[in-house]
Amino acid sequence: MNFTASQIADLVSGTVEGNNNAEVNRLSKIEEGEKGSLSFLANPKYTPYLYTTDATITLVRDSFVAEKEFKTTLIRVEDPYDAFSKLLEHYNEIQQHYSSGIAHTAIVSQEAIIAASAFIGDYTQVGVKTTVEDQVMIQPNVYVGNNVFIGANTKIHSGARILDGTIIGKDCVIHSNAVIGADGFGWAPNANGSYDKVPQTGNVTIGDHVDVGANTTIDRATLGATKIGNGVKLDNLIQIGHNVEIGDHTVIAAQTGIAGSTKIGTHCQIGGQVGIGGHLTIGNRVGIQAKSGILKNIKDDGKVMGYPAFDYTAFNKAYVHFRNLHTHISDLNSLKKKLDHE
Amino acid sequence: MNFTASQIADLVSGTVEGNNNAEVNRLSKIEEGEKGSLSFLANPKYTPYLYTTDATITLVRDSFVAEKEFKTTLIRVEDPYDAFSKLLEHYNEIQQHYSSGIAHTAIVSQEAIIAASAFIGDYTQVGVKTTVEDQVMIQPNVYVGNNVFIGANTKIHSGARILDGTIIGKDCVIHSNAVIGADGFGWAPNANGSYDKVPQTGNVTIGDHVDVGANTTIDRATLGATKIGNGVKLDNLIQIGHNVEIGDHTVIAAQTGIAGSTKIGTHCQIGGQVGIGGHLTIGNRVGIQAKSGILKNIKDDGKVMGYPAFDYTAFNKAYVHFRNLHTHISDLNSLKKKLDHE
Amino acid sequence: MNFTASQIADLVSGTVEGNNNAEVNRLSKIEEGEKGSLSFLANPKYTPYLYTTDATITLVRDSFVAEKEFKTTLIRVEDPYDAFSKLLEHYNEIQQHYSSGIAHTAIVSQEAIIAASAFIGDYTQVGVKTTVEDQVMIQPNVYVGNNVFIGANTKIHSGARILDGTIIGKDCVIHSNAVIGADGFGWAPNANGSYDKVPQTGNVTIGDHVDVGANTTIDRATLGATKIGNGVKLDNLIQIGHNVEIGDHTVIAAQTGIAGSTKIGTHCQIGGQVGIGGHLTIGNRVGIQAKSGILKNIKDDGKVMGYPAFDYTAFNKAYVHFRNLHTHISDLNSLKKKLDHE
Repeated sequence: MNFTASQIADLVSGTVEGNNNAEVNRLSKIEEGEKGSLSFLANPKYTPYLYTTDATITLVRDSFVAEKEFKTTLIRVEDPYDAFSKLLEHYNEIQQHYSSGIAHTAIVSQEAIIAASAFIGDYTQVGVKTTVEDQVMIQPNVYVGNNVFIGANTKIHSGARILDGTIIGKDCVIHSNAVIGADGFGWAPNANGSYDKVPQTGNVTIGDHVDVGANTTIDRATLGATKIGNGVKLDNLIQIGHNVEIGDHTVIAAQTGIAGSTKIGTHCQIGGQVGIGGHLTIGNRVGIQAKSGILKNIKDDGKVMGYPAFDYTAFNKAYVHFRNLHTHISDLNSLKKKLDHE
Repeated sequence: MNFTASQIADLVSGTVEGNNNAEVNRLSKIEEGEKGSLSFLANPKYTPYLYTTDATITLVRDSFVAEKEFKTTLIRVEDPYDAFSKLLEHYNEIQQHYSSGIAHTAIVSQEAIIAASAFIGDYTQVGVKTTVEDQVMIQPNVYVGNNVFIGANTKIHSGARILDGTIIGKDCVIHSNAVIGADGFGWAPNANGSYDKVPQTGNVTIGDHVDVGANTTIDRATLGATKIGNGVKLDNLIQIGHNVEIGDHTVIAAQTGIAGSTKIGTHCQIGGQVGIGGHLTIGNRVGIQAKSGILKNIKDDGKVMGYPAFDYTAFNKAYVHFRNLHTHISDLNSLKKKLDHE
Repeated sequence: MNFTASQIADLVSGTVEGNNNAEVNRLSKIEEGEKGSLSFLANPKYTPYLYTTDATITLVRDSFVAEKEFKTTLIRVEDPYDAFSKLLEHYNEIQQHYSSGIAHTAIVSQEAIIAASAFIGDYTQVGVKTTVEDQVMIQPNVYVGNNVFIGANTKIHSGARILDGTIIGKDCVIHSNAVIGADGFGWAPNANGSYDKVPQTGNVTIGDHVDVGANTTIDRATLGATKIGNGVKLDNLIQIGHNVEIGDHTVIAAQTGIAGSTKIGTHCQIGGQVGIGGHLTIGNRVGIQAKSGILKNIKDDGKVMGYPAFDYTAFNKAYVHFRNLHTHISDLNSLKKKLDHE
């Protein structure tokens, strides 16, 4: 879909300087601008790119004064970054296909309750006693089990597996190939040196405005629920063990794993590839550096790093010495020699 | 499905104290008991919850003497935890739908051999010369390739990919979106600075009573087989490289990776996010702490930690000093100064 | 399919010594040879296995002189390893089913352009304005979105998700359950302590001869493209963040994660479970040891290890001292005592 410079100026309350009929159909960074793309110039250090960019249209600040020639059509706005963000959102909305209805090849239980405005894609299955609310979009090739609840406006991407009993709130996004509600990893050693399965009968509950990344796994509880709070954002390839609880608005980067029964507070920021042991309590607003290994509880506002992790500043101080350990040990050995000779 | 207090008392050889007709339809922890749930009180430290729980029925020890009022109906048994576990198993069996037959939309090769008691779900495919034994349950949206063997009672969850030549024993569970039998990562650098593929022609063999977690990947061997022994339990998001061999009853936690051709003994316990290098030999009954990186062979009964890993106790001793390295180095510097001034 | 010793001798320009009609139908290592398998003896240290192997046929060097009896039929060739590799490739080609055509149950947009020689499997979907070139093989249960391009000879395995706008070059292999083109993890904290989604409107571009492992995830760019160069090999369960760029012929082992906007050079070798922070620049021919955590740029030809990583040799020197830290600190304390007493 093409937009003209005048149409865009209308959308962002700007004024065109150049060709009112210049057309664009995609967005780009100014340094990667091409014919047909729209860019922006917010940070002055990118100004040189304005004179060379092939972007057809560029958003600039009202006060911008050019010092050289350029080819791009300008749209002057108060705040180019804000205007660009607004266009990004607009663009994204247009990209979405607000289809509704149930695809001919979808297999939906007669005992499922599907809102008329929901969309269910090809080769997707929806089980017995499952509820799918308004505007929910379930892409093709998804498996939704029995007794599942999916709140309004939630989007589930192709290949996700939403297993029996899972409850998902409103406005969530579950990305492709995520698995929600598989059995937790519970094994009781027996007298023969092998393991008996501890039955996993609980479920997973997910709040509103939650994102679950591609190929991320969230296990069902042994008893009760594995709980993901409102506004939680989980990146790709994360493992959430059985009976874990994650507080509201906590953000977790890719490939982190949280072992069973650990409770994490609200507003935490957890880096990628972090490992958190089982049965721990992590407070609110805790920061955990990428790749840390957590073996102990962490208090509110704690900031940790290391394997095993401890205070962030203390870790970095110790690590500086670690890097120079060879020098320090040489010093130590010189002292020993000196004293032995006295 | 609802059960009355008398029905449950029969199942667990207990005696009802309260309402014989009280009905429950799910299990809960005592501290999370709700109307309609059944709980248990085994550990005395949870006794206070008995007086406040909303659970409709609670299992208690024969000898239990209440010190306050309570609402829940009691069922007295010899061992409440055992009785509860028995109910968990019973509950789980009921939850399972012992369907059999091949779904109308499943695509099964005419050259596949499928037991009459097996179940094959919608949109699942089963390839040429594949054998599926008695009571096997293959959920919807699964891909089973050619020349695969799936032993009796094994369950394969939605989205799993069981690629050509894979052999799976009896009583296994393959969780959703696991990939078994993809090509190993074998590349031979060539004269141009790029890589030629080393053909991967082997397969994966899996013993009996094995669990493979959601989104776990087990690569086929270059030649011969990648071998997973009997009773092995693999958690989610694990990577098993080509030609790896894992001994019986070894348990591995989530996100661990094992590089090609490494052999792991029996009865090992390997934590989460562990990395094990290629072509190593890990003995029997070895314990590897979470997040360790293994670059050397480990003897029977070894217990290691660290990156690179060494003896568990030695690592912890060294790490205590690492945490205090700043103090130690200050001491060292003071000594230097002192000696220089003498 | 069976082959006789004479047929194989023809294929590898060798001469049979033994039974010309001996039949094999698979390949094996010499120490795992079985009736019906073909092995090779290249490395002299495996010679003892020749006298005991059950392999029906074994490739040996022209100059080989037996010192004991043996059962296997020999095929003498100039270079047994080369001959075996040739047979491996031949075997692999035969294994491939060069089908073409669109399965009856595949759902392909009428606005997609599919080459006549391409194959599209059952229950696979292909979206609007997507191009699929010659000899492309898309296995069953794959989801290919809109505006996707898939170059000639590329193979996409069951369960992969190729989301809107993705561009894949020629001769690539995308393994099962990989997810290419999911939204990047972009969140802007807002005044309420929760997060607003930063719209992700870019795509993923993949060069020629690229392998993407099972369950690996490559996120689309916020703006522009996440770029994977020619000849890049990605193992299983890898995470590639939005706007990452990976140079030609770089190889990355399993479970490594690369955070957003990082640029990686050509011909790098990156171990498994490595974590690389966001917005970094990694040079060409860089080597990163498994499990390292990268927080800084790395120059061309750098070789690093550790968490956080630094020079490989320096890390190993420091780590030797770390392992002996208990002894060093004891020495230090003895010195202190000694000096205090003087």
